[in-house]
Formats: sequence, structure tokens, C-alpha cells
Amino acid sequence: MSILDRISIVLVEPQSPGNVGMVCRAMKNMGLSSLRLVKGCRTDSSDARRFAVSARDVLDGAVRFDSLEAALADTVISVATTRRFGKYRQEIMDPPETVARLRSRIGDGRAALVFGREDSGLTTAELSLCRWQATIPTSEEYGSMNLAQAVLIFCWELSRGLAGGAPQSPRELAAMSEMESLYRHMEETLLRIGFLDPLNPAHLMRTLRRIFSRAELDTREVAVLRGMMSQVDWAAAAAKGMVRPENR
Amino acid sequence: MSILDRISIVLVEPQSPGNVGMVCRAMKNMGLSSLRLVKGCRTDSSDARRFAVSARDVLDGAVRFDSLEAALADTVISVATTRRFGKYRQEIMDPPETVARLRSRIGDGRAALVFGREDSGLTTAELSLCRWQATIPTSEEYGSMNLAQAVLIFCWELSRGLAGGAPQSPRELAAMSEMESLYRHMEETLLRIGFLDPLNPAHLMRTLRRIFSRAELDTREVAVLRGMMSQVDWAAAAAKGMVRPENR
Repeated sequence: MSILDRISIVLVEPQSPGNVGMVCRAMKNMGLSSLRLVKGCRTDSSDARRFAVSARDVLDGAVRFDSLEAALADTVISVATTRRFGKYRQEIMDPPETVARLRSRIGDGRAALVFGREDSGLTTAELSLCRWQATIPTSEEYGSMNLAQAVLIFCWELSRGLAGGAPQSPRELAAMSEMESLYRHMEETLLRIGFLDPLNPAHLMRTLRRIFSRAELDTREVAVLRGMMSQVDWAAAAAKGMVRPENR
Repeated sequence: MSILDRISIVLVEPQSPGNVGMVCRAMKNMGLSSLRLVKGCRTDSSDARRFAVSARDVLDGAVRFDSLEAALADTVISVATTRRFGKYRQEIMDPPETVARLRSRIGDGRAALVFGREDSGLTTAELSLCRWQATIPTSEEYGSMNLAQAVLIFCWELSRGLAGGAPQSPRELAAMSEMESLYRHMEETLLRIGFLDPLNPAHLMRTLRRIFSRAELDTREVAVLRGMMSQVDWAAAAAKGMVRPENR
């Protein structure tokens, strides 16, 4: 069981079924599945289902509670999300801080992230039921986020911060010797067609080396570039009435 | 002027006015304001305005383009967002990597994050117009995100990652239009010497685009590579007894 399965999203009195549907989709995109609703709108409407798209299982699995206290009863950590910065704003964490702290404290328990009403958020009493408070830093010009968008930010940070998965295997780069063969071929070809100065071929070759070093070529790409140079060799040879060189 | 003002969100053929409105709200929440649309649905509908809520200025300021190439012409960095993991998935960055790299490379230039159609994303041709590719890691069970949700994740990471401003004077990258001129020149030359398959020049050109995108060329390096192509043109023309073309 992943930690994400032990984290619930709690919506307190959501007003728009469409928003609840979008919350379900955002949760499922990020690997969360436990939704709790404290009163609020009906969620069996077509709007809720339409916006949930393929996350109807999350919607259908949502559990209803009569009070926030009941919804949080089995949690060891509860986080109230808020847009208000009151007296205790220094205790309000941003989403990455929230996830880091949750990760270190959740143990084998359950946690909940609590989101208030679309128009008025959580009440002071509801805020104080929660163990921690968190907010999403937004533009000062326009701080009002859509409910599902706010849920998404936290779910995104949870999935990133709690995944612990291995990094993707990096691209396998061409060996140094392949690169040097490419540069030699390039230098010969570009000298032949008069692109490099025979008195100072290193000057432009340094530029080309920088370009292809930064490009971090793999073996196939080296082969493509050598193929290109062979074709230039052929064009240059044809110009002099020669046959195409073999096995360059 | 904040870096965020130099970053555009580009939507390619968005289909739902409501989604465009939600994108505007998400952008403004995170301090972005430049929206570019490549064709797509009308945005003067009531749905678009309703979902934009207080971000109607972003909606009204959206600029329309007839092609993705035109929408990216003034950018030094363009990032295609994709859900598809093809052969080259190891080159696809996640949002924090994208922002870190964008921060170190944007300099005084403009950047664009490009999002495709709701149902089918970006085409292969559109992907290869962009310098980098990025994706949002999602649950394996359900990876299809709403367009505005995907835009929000990137805007959130941009607003977090760019808060401190860009580092001073990184290398100044060649503009998109210079890169496209280079690719056009390369394609013509490589067709002429028989390196590209006239029936499918795009195949190897995609490889070359990936190589030179990763190489992050500056203006001088583009000039060096164009000089090399001109010299190849000359060699090819000499092969046919023609004179050297001027001013390629």
C-alpha cells in the first residue's frame, strides 16, 4: 500500500458538482483515491460525472460525513488549506513544506488535506480542528484559485514528494572513441570541400566540437552524422570525377 | 519586468472555450499573462469568460497565430508538452527539470510552453518544432489530464522556480526563426546531395533537429553550420559544373 492510499482529500461543503468531478480527476491523475465529503452538493449529478471523466471510481467511492471532526477522526495528520493569512501566518506552510513534513510524520497512519467552500473557505472553527495549516503561494494580483486547481497542486506535490521512485535511466551516450572518429571524419571531409582553413582547421573544429559535445550524441546519432559526411565526401569526389570512396 | 512576463503559454487548437478560460485563471493565479492561441475554438464565448473569472484580461490579451511556427518565432526556448513516451523518452523532462533548465538558459529572451489539443495533443511535426519536450508524471492508472490542470502544474513550477529571477548573462541562444532557417537550408542541401530520402526527408531531419536542439546553438554557431552547408552546396554544384551559389 502506497502512502498516497493513506491520504484523503476532504472537501468541506463543496458547492459545485463540476468542481467535485474535477477534483476526482486531479486526484486520480496523481495517484490518490480517497475522497471525503463533509456535507455539500450532490455528487450523483451528470456534471460531477462528466468532469470526473475516467475518475468515476473516485467519485463513486467518496465517503460522506456530517462533520469535519468525523471526517478526520481516523487521521494522525490533518492539514487545513487556507487563503487567509491571519495572526499565525508564520505557521502556514507551502505545499512542498507540507509534503516534506507529512512524509516525516505520517508513519503508518492516515492523513487528510482539507479544502473549504469555493466562496468562503474554512471557518475558524474548522481551521482549528486541523493539525497544520497550508496555503498555495499565488500572484498578489489574483489569488483566488479554483477548488480543483488547488487540490491538484497539493496532489502533484504529494505524488512527487512521496513517490520515492527511481530516476529514469539516462540516455546512453556515444563513447569518447566514437566521438573522436566522428570529429576526424568531419575534419577530413570539411577540409576537402574547403570549409576549414587548411592553415588552421582547429579553429572551426573547436566550434563544432563544442556544438556536438553539448548535443550529447548517442551512437545512432553519431552514425547519422557520419553518414552525412560520407555523402558529402561522395559529392566532393563526384566533383572531381572520382568514384565514391568505400567504407569511410 | 519579471521573467514570467517573458514566458508565453501556447495552446494549439484548443477545442473547449471553458478550458481556455480555466487556463487564463490558472496563468493569472501564478503570475503569467501571455497567452498565444494557434487556431482553435472561439474565445469570445460566455463559457470562456465564465471560467476565466477574474482573468479576463489574460483572455482578452490572447494573441492568435495561424501556425505554431509563427507563434514561436520570437522565442529562444520552446517546450512541447506531451503525454506520449516514444523512442526518445529519456530526453523528456519533468516540470521541475524544465523550469530549472529554462531558468539557466532563458537569458533576456522569450520562452513558450506549448500544449496540444485536448484529445490528441501535438503532432509529431509540432513536437519537432519545439526545442525541448516535457511531460507531467502522472499515475499509470490514469494519465489523461485536463488541459487547464496541465497548464497549472507548469505555471506553478514556473512561479516557484523563477521567483529569484534568472542568473546573469547565460549564453544567448539563437532565435527560433534562425534555427528554422538553418533547418530549411540543411534540408535543401542534404536533399541535393542525396543524404535525405526525397520521399521522407522528415525522418532524418527529426534526428538532426533533436541533435541541434540539444546543442543549444547561439547565433554564431548557426552561422558556422550554415557556412558549412553553403560549402556543401558549392561542392555539389561543382559536381554538376555549376557555379557556386551566392548568399545562401
